[in-house]
Amino acid sequence: MTHEIVVIPGDGIGQEVTPAAVDVLEALDLEFEFVEADAGDAVAEETGEPLPQETYDLAAGADATLFGAVGETAADVILPLREAVESFVNIRPAKAYPGVDALRPETDLVFLRENTEGVYSGHEDRLSQDVSTLTRVVTESASRDLAEFACDYVAGDGHDGFTIAHKANVMRETDGLFRDTVAEVAEENGVETDEVLMDAFATHVCLDPTQFDVVVCPNLAGDVLSDLAAGLVGGLGLLPSANVGPERALFEPVHGSAPDIAGEGVANPAATIISAAMMLEHLGYDDEADAVHEAVETTLEEGPHTPDLGGDASTADVTEVVIDRL
Amino acid sequence: MTHEIVVIPGDGIGQEVTPAAVDVLEALDLEFEFVEADAGDAVAEETGEPLPQETYDLAAGADATLFGAVGETAADVILPLREAVESFVNIRPAKAYPGVDALRPETDLVFLRENTEGVYSGHEDRLSQDVSTLTRVVTESASRDLAEFACDYVAGDGHDGFTIAHKANVMRETDGLFRDTVAEVAEENGVETDEVLMDAFATHVCLDPTQFDVVVCPNLAGDVLSDLAAGLVGGLGLLPSANVGPERALFEPVHGSAPDIAGEGVANPAATIISAAMMLEHLGYDDEADAVHEAVETTLEEGPHTPDLGGDASTADVTEVVIDRL
Ligand SMILES: CC(C)[C@H](C(=O)O)[C@@H](O)C(=O)O
Ligand SMILES: CC(C)[C@H](C(=O)O)[C@@H](O)C(=O)O
Repeated sequence: MTHEIVVIPGDGIGQEVTPAAVDVLEALDLEFEFVEADAGDAVAEETGEPLPQETYDLAAGADATLFGAVGETAADVILPLREAVESFVNIRPAKAYPGVDALRPETDLVFLRENTEGVYSGHEDRLSQDVSTLTRVVTESASRDLAEFACDYVAGDGHDGFTIAHKANVMRETDGLFRDTVAEVAEENGVETDEVLMDAFATHVCLDPTQFDVVVCPNLAGDVLSDLAAGLVGGLGLLPSANVGPERALFEPVHGSAPDIAGEGVANPAATIISAAMMLEHLGYDDEADAVHEAVETTLEEGPHTPDLGGDASTADVTEVVIDRL
Repeated sequence: MTHEIVVIPGDGIGQEVTPAAVDVLEALDLEFEFVEADAGDAVAEETGEPLPQETYDLAAGADATLFGAVGETAADVILPLREAVESFVNIRPAKAYPGVDALRPETDLVFLRENTEGVYSGHEDRLSQDVSTLTRVVTESASRDLAEFACDYVAGDGHDGFTIAHKANVMRETDGLFRDTVAEVAEENGVETDEVLMDAFATHVCLDPTQFDVVVCPNLAGDVLSDLAAGLVGGLGLLPSANVGPERALFEPVHGSAPDIAGEGVANPAATIISAAMMLEHLGYDDEADAVHEAVETTLEEGPHTPDLGGDASTADVTEVVIDRL
């Protein structure tokens, strides 16, 4: 069965790391049909529109989308694209790799971030000169979808359960509904959970990240706490992510378009290649996914390394070695 | 001039560290009149009310309030008390001390957290079985008050300016108003600012905390990011804070009531004593404030240490030595 994969390189180093990940996928000789699409600052400058309707429609119709990075217009591109693939969960592994400097080398976490609502549902008003408001939305149904996904996730991957991170001591109704629904679904499924306030999580994950494993949280909490975990493993450079919906999904490195090094051909392709491995897993190619994960891990451990990791290899050098190691 | 100081020990170790800080204040022989008041889980169990009206009124009328810690009912106590003193800013220094293990010993940050609104203004609704909402409020006036305070703060303390941390790429109207107002006030006052997204801050502060100095942020961002900084300096145990209003203020350690060690007389009083030093500064006793800061810092560096810092001294031992060093 042929899979249609939409590829959206975007801006800056997105134009370098995305083709690198496609090269790795092509080396696997699977039946993928790649369709390239535009989005980001460059398109916005030409057309006034950072996310062309055509790109949106392609993502909304494809089996999977591989996304690179976008500059200033990131929110205008990535939020609608998450919607296009009807993604209800953003999977964000944050794992330290041997061979890469990390503040907490023992970090090995996975965030399952609610991906449709919270402050991102985005209803804002300017009520008067002085007063602005934002309506934060939390629904039982979205919390339930996330929780069911989380239960499958921890069952499939041999985890002990998951931690619910929230701020229900202040957001009693909304985060209270989130916490209670997620805990209830877990109980129905025989999955163990514990809970932690998101502020306490921020302290404790620094003191000892091994206290946590899979962390389920509302949208903004997931955004901030997973970026915090990125700081513990040595930066955003290595973090992959998956935006998963019922039928489609979009895969993207957590890093941005890095305009400071764009065009030099030295961007680290690891996060995008690992995102591509998550895509392989999602499409059912488990062996191929494992092979890519292993090839990247070996390369992180043994080199060659791009300059961000202290080496002097190019994006192409690293990609070639990863492909050789498949 | 006699100052009336309301003292609210609260629950757990609050009952141990608050009297310790009062002992230090009394040793200074200033004209303070201490009035003790109740709040917390224990009172709630007796009376059904975690924050007695009398306590609220005392805090609302006193020059300053020294607060210990409260257990499960923390939000029901501390949020109204911040309101009682009309606090518009929560000052949260996060500094690593020589002699104390820290993940990032070079950390020396001060968070100026908006203290009245954001998600804390707390209007929540359950619109239907499925849907709950919270109205997040950001006003120009509260943003302006915070910004004016921040400008004075950085001028008085010889900082270069401050960083505005926000999430205006998603919360465009509300955090946009916050960011724009704060930046505008800073410009009017000739204070330099830069800005950073709160998620990016979470990564970057781990990678290099010396990039930042004074960080001005909305309420929940300040809650989470300052707790993150606590993780970098070795935990909440040493962090003081001040809730400052136009006429009154409330000082509290950032840590909680620590039921696991309560009653043993070994709680670390440092955070509460440093909070008392912030109170002295606030009341205009700059020399005494410096003396207390120095006495605590020397004690953190040279001991004696309570068990949380690897020692076997009691709360009383540490307090006595701090007093001797004044
Ligand atoms: C670009 C921005 C809207 C986005 C988010 O807040 O989700 C980004 O920070 C991320 O985490 O992918
Ligand atoms: C107890 C809670 C309501 C409070 C807050 O969220 O402000 C606490 O976390 C703090 O930071 O003082």
